[in-house]
Amino acid sequence: MKAAGVVVEYNPFHNGHYYHLQETKRVTKASCIIAVMSGNFLQRGEPALLSKWSRTKMALSGGADLVIELPYSYATSHAQRFAFGSIFLLQAVGSESFCFGSESGDVTAFQNTHDLLETQSEEFDAFVQEYMSQGLSYPGAAAKAYVSLEKPLHLDLSKPNNILGFEYIRAARILGSKITPFSIKRKNAGYHDVSLGKGNIASATAIREAVFSHDIQKAQNYMPSFTFQSLTEEIEKKGCLMNWERFYPLLRYQLLSSSPSEINLFYEIEEGLEYRMIEAMKLSSDFQSFMKALKTKRYTWTRLQRACLHVLNKITKEDMNQILDLPPAYIRVLGMTETGQQYLRSIKKSLELPLVTTVSKHDFKGLNMEAKTSLVYAQGVLKNSLGAEQEEFKTPPIMV
Amino acid sequence: MKAAGVVVEYNPFHNGHYYHLQETKRVTKASCIIAVMSGNFLQRGEPALLSKWSRTKMALSGGADLVIELPYSYATSHAQRFAFGSIFLLQAVGSESFCFGSESGDVTAFQNTHDLLETQSEEFDAFVQEYMSQGLSYPGAAAKAYVSLEKPLHLDLSKPNNILGFEYIRAARILGSKITPFSIKRKNAGYHDVSLGKGNIASATAIREAVFSHDIQKAQNYMPSFTFQSLTEEIEKKGCLMNWERFYPLLRYQLLSSSPSEINLFYEIEEGLEYRMIEAMKLSSDFQSFMKALKTKRYTWTRLQRACLHVLNKITKEDMNQILDLPPAYIRVLGMTETGQQYLRSIKKSLELPLVTTVSKHDFKGLNMEAKTSLVYAQGVLKNSLGAEQEEFKTPPIMV
Repeated sequence: MKAAGVVVEYNPFHNGHYYHLQETKRVTKASCIIAVMSGNFLQRGEPALLSKWSRTKMALSGGADLVIELPYSYATSHAQRFAFGSIFLLQAVGSESFCFGSESGDVTAFQNTHDLLETQSEEFDAFVQEYMSQGLSYPGAAAKAYVSLEKPLHLDLSKPNNILGFEYIRAARILGSKITPFSIKRKNAGYHDVSLGKGNIASATAIREAVFSHDIQKAQNYMPSFTFQSLTEEIEKKGCLMNWERFYPLLRYQLLSSSPSEINLFYEIEEGLEYRMIEAMKLSSDFQSFMKALKTKRYTWTRLQRACLHVLNKITKEDMNQILDLPPAYIRVLGMTETGQQYLRSIKKSLELPLVTTVSKHDFKGLNMEAKTSLVYAQGVLKNSLGAEQEEFKTPPIMV
Repeated sequence: MKAAGVVVEYNPFHNGHYYHLQETKRVTKASCIIAVMSGNFLQRGEPALLSKWSRTKMALSGGADLVIELPYSYATSHAQRFAFGSIFLLQAVGSESFCFGSESGDVTAFQNTHDLLETQSEEFDAFVQEYMSQGLSYPGAAAKAYVSLEKPLHLDLSKPNNILGFEYIRAARILGSKITPFSIKRKNAGYHDVSLGKGNIASATAIREAVFSHDIQKAQNYMPSFTFQSLTEEIEKKGCLMNWERFYPLLRYQLLSSSPSEINLFYEIEEGLEYRMIEAMKLSSDFQSFMKALKTKRYTWTRLQRACLHVLNKITKEDMNQILDLPPAYIRVLGMTETGQQYLRSIKKSLELPLVTTVSKHDFKGLNMEAKTSLVYAQGVLKNSLGAEQEEFKTPPIMV
């Protein structure tokens, strides 16, 4: 059985994601689609709207056959590490190809850009250094460096989705992997679009915006019916959907009951960010105001949100340093269809990493971090918190 | 000017407290009444219903002339340390006497009991050891030891209020202080009575019970009008009154995001209590259920609540060990009347400890602990949390 991979967050699953899965099947000619999906916390440094279990169910209902968890340390990291963890896991689980969405749908543009950049890497690094010394963030400096190169790149790497695609290609090259990359052209909606717009495809950002403005009915057009059902079920079960505001009281408590040197122990707290956080906290009674008070040219919004996540989850530099240089040590199955199950059976013997279906039966550093952060994620619910806390430990893989 | 002292929590101030202050004036013939009062967290291991500032205002409205803060490390400690810190501060601020309420009102009974116990201290200690080895808590073992002595004591030291009186006497003796002890007979209401009962005096416990059962009108008979006003003002300003339930989400978060060895660093977490806490937490969605799951014969309810306070406030054994063997290092004025102000002026030059009116101008370990725990206390409010956080640093002494 031939498998193809996708890298996803599904926050929440919408019509664009459905299209992506269908197109992936079409272009890769695979009969099993493997989704590597982030758990409770996401790459932009945010808690997921819905739990990993609800999102797994949506993935399987929408066309994925096997959902593998991208561990916290990759899922909440910069594009390069996020992509490396994802492609590594897809390769580890035997995926012959992977397919990502892009503006152009032209995978060779990504490959050529990668190769061209390789030949100019010293020049590129020098530009990045220069722009960062002028006070820019790394992504800001890199975006400026791309267009400063002598031989211009044919891909706009300042766009987040292009960056991710580029990093997938780079990860596959680093891994020396035979995995074949594909890209499909995205329909409508930019990655960051905040309005719902015409047609039946909108960005997840726009959908979340609508959901939190109590316009959930309005957003219904842009998602399969099972997503709408998951959203209403989760609200029923937990009293709310998750966003940063649900966790702001805990972040406040954590920051205000810690000394600057204690905060500095947390991952991604660098260059005195702990002091800025404490000061911003004193001025802000909600997370959005806090972020505005915290924001500087030096750091992107995303980078700051990720730092906040690590404080919230109490993930220290020491915790991360123990796993940062190692690839994922296990393959965690969050859910599967019958096809996914057959596929797993067929490749089980050739897997080099252990398969994890029950967290409590294993002892990996990355998995322990998953358990710890899941307990924190469960503190965000408005009702049935004891049930939410047990989900991570008691939920068997979702079968659809 | 002659000053007499009282040791108080005013949680909240009620008619019995009013009577205590009037009687203290009468029996001591003092013209200035000094109240040593706990800050935001109390001896039974609970957050105070109202902030220290509201309670200071009530104290001054009710007959006290000067309110001095009992630091966190004493205010949330066992009776002996609580009493030592209180009497030490009263002596340090020049109080010639102190007066406490008791069942009998007979201070000589306390003094005689103290002296008689001194002569039997070895026997007493042996009994305590024996009873503790049978699994009793220290207070339980001590209560049983008191009645096992060869020469029986004439005071029932199993009653919390008698224990406190006894410890005040002991503290005065240890300090070799010339401070004269007085006791007045309490009117009605036992310390732990939970019903409001007849007359216009009820225990603070019964009043809090009524307040949290939305029977605040019913409790009105048992308190001066200024207490009722403070309660309604605080509800208006902060959206709620404080109890443990307001802090349970933070305690949960703290416990569930920490390893047992991290929890073990906190003060009063001994003998594997960290494991019991984690297990009890998994079963309990509110603080009362949590405490019931945590309770064993080995520890009193109060002792366990105090341990929870130290976890909530992140007060470590190391933090406490730095100050445990030292007496209070400063005198913090929370408020005063004109009389109190005159008194302070008259004794200012002879004070051996620094007077603190603005927290940010001083750097004492005990005061830093006060600041830290005040920030945590402020996290319990339902509205105006930024204002609540600044109270500790921006409130000048209350003048009535």
